[in-house]
Amino acid sequence: MARPVISIVGLGLMGGSLAAALTKAQNAPFTVRGVARRAESIAAAVERGFIAEGTCDPAAGVCDADLVIFATPVRTTIDLMGRLAAHFKPGCIVSDLGSTKAAVVQAMAKLPPHVDPIGGHPMCGKEVSGLEAAEADLFQGRVYILTPLERTSDQAVRALQEVIALIGSRCIILEPDRHDRLVAAISHLPYLLSVCLVNVADGLSSEDEMVWELVSSGFRDTSRLAASDPIMMQDILMTNRENVRHMVARFLQCLGQFDGFLAHNDERAVSEWTRAAHRRREGIFR
Amino acid sequence: MARPVISIVGLGLMGGSLAAALTKAQNAPFTVRGVARRAESIAAAVERGFIAEGTCDPAAGVCDADLVIFATPVRTTIDLMGRLAAHFKPGCIVSDLGSTKAAVVQAMAKLPPHVDPIGGHPMCGKEVSGLEAAEADLFQGRVYILTPLERTSDQAVRALQEVIALIGSRCIILEPDRHDRLVAAISHLPYLLSVCLVNVADGLSSEDEMVWELVSSGFRDTSRLAASDPIMMQDILMTNRENVRHMVARFLQCLGQFDGFLAHNDERAVSEWTRAAHRRREGIFR
Repeated sequence: MARPVISIVGLGLMGGSLAAALTKAQNAPFTVRGVARRAESIAAAVERGFIAEGTCDPAAGVCDADLVIFATPVRTTIDLMGRLAAHFKPGCIVSDLGSTKAAVVQAMAKLPPHVDPIGGHPMCGKEVSGLEAAEADLFQGRVYILTPLERTSDQAVRALQEVIALIGSRCIILEPDRHDRLVAAISHLPYLLSVCLVNVADGLSSEDEMVWELVSSGFRDTSRLAASDPIMMQDILMTNRENVRHMVARFLQCLGQFDGFLAHNDERAVSEWTRAAHRRREGIFR
Repeated sequence: MARPVISIVGLGLMGGSLAAALTKAQNAPFTVRGVARRAESIAAAVERGFIAEGTCDPAAGVCDADLVIFATPVRTTIDLMGRLAAHFKPGCIVSDLGSTKAAVVQAMAKLPPHVDPIGGHPMCGKEVSGLEAAEADLFQGRVYILTPLERTSDQAVRALQEVIALIGSRCIILEPDRHDRLVAAISHLPYLLSVCLVNVADGLSSEDEMVWELVSSGFRDTSRLAASDPIMMQDILMTNRENVRHMVARFLQCLGQFDGFLAHNDERAVSEWTRAAHRRREGIFR
């Protein structure tokens, strides 16, 4: 019997890293295949030992695969998955690595009945994108969220759980809406804050060019997410608009409140907030 | 002749690191003395080889020093410097490491004429505080701002420049007001964003305890500054209120604008902003 085939569609930072992690996994009884737009990406991924084989033809890349994982921007995944619908083989498990889940799972629900879809989102990444930045250890010790559909088989859930264990992540199963609301607060809001912080500093730099001379580690870290891949982020924001806007509203309310403390010289409130944030932040990352 | 004495008042992260860097500097022709509130801090700093000697008595610690550098929270520096005014020896150079400069320099202007004051601010730090976190390399390759007063002697500027070179930093001379405006944007605003981000996530966690399970590197970095020492940050915010509020206003305007793009499904504007932030952020930190 042929070894099962795992096809990873998209060989950027996330897809490349997943391919590398699966290929590196010991005693992994499957073939890791890469699907990419550019032949150079396939060649580079083969060269780096991330994939056993690859193709630039998505239909050919998925037609005999047992598991297909889309590692493309969310709306590319939705589009491509729909166009490949007829090409998946019966029983094929279809998953993804997208940072929003409601829109993806909605699209998965429309796949033909012979396909077994399940949403996925590993909670890791880097601000640099592309295959060059990919690394097998990216998933080590991280949370990997699964969002099964009603139609998802137990077998598909178990298969993904095995993949997740193989790459060293911890599986958490969530409803897509709950997922999207949570990541709006902890991933998408931080991204917007970084973007607007860079925007403010950039605006100030047109008045005083000294700005960029002085930026130090605090600015570097707070603005890090602004360097995220713009197309990936645009897809994320546009497929999670309501949740993101809700968290932005909470944030604006909060920053406005702090600004009021400063306006009124309210030492006590400033002290309470700085202490509470310190305590809470220390509690999260020890 | 006796070796010159450099007294560092406050042996937390910054003071401890400066003491360590100066003591470590090769052929440094001076004695590094530590002044701290607690005897244990002195003992620990001596034990780690950061200082040659130390005292818990500020007056005794500064009375024969040639250079005194305050490494305490900004308002403690202002208060303590005033109370020690009569104890500085003639020609003593008095400086500090505070993150706001207008208020400090204003207080320095009131020192008796036999003292030679000059403001300072090394653009480095960590989100962990205390002597335990101190390290000699903290200043290596960083910018160290000096804000001389009109009365500051050339000799004092040169002495500080030598100190800055010794610890591996690069000196930039700025007006206090210009300094405060710039750091409001690149240090104090990022701090407030981190505090409010933690606040929003904390509020959400009371509705859904899953929040803290999912936080990953993006949240960690964007919220890092919230772990800064609360007393230090409170002093910074209260002595730079106007500039901070000005930058908060710019930020609120910016985030509100982005929210408008999302509200109106404005793909083009979202795309432009995510691309511009990516490009700009890549340009700053290569």
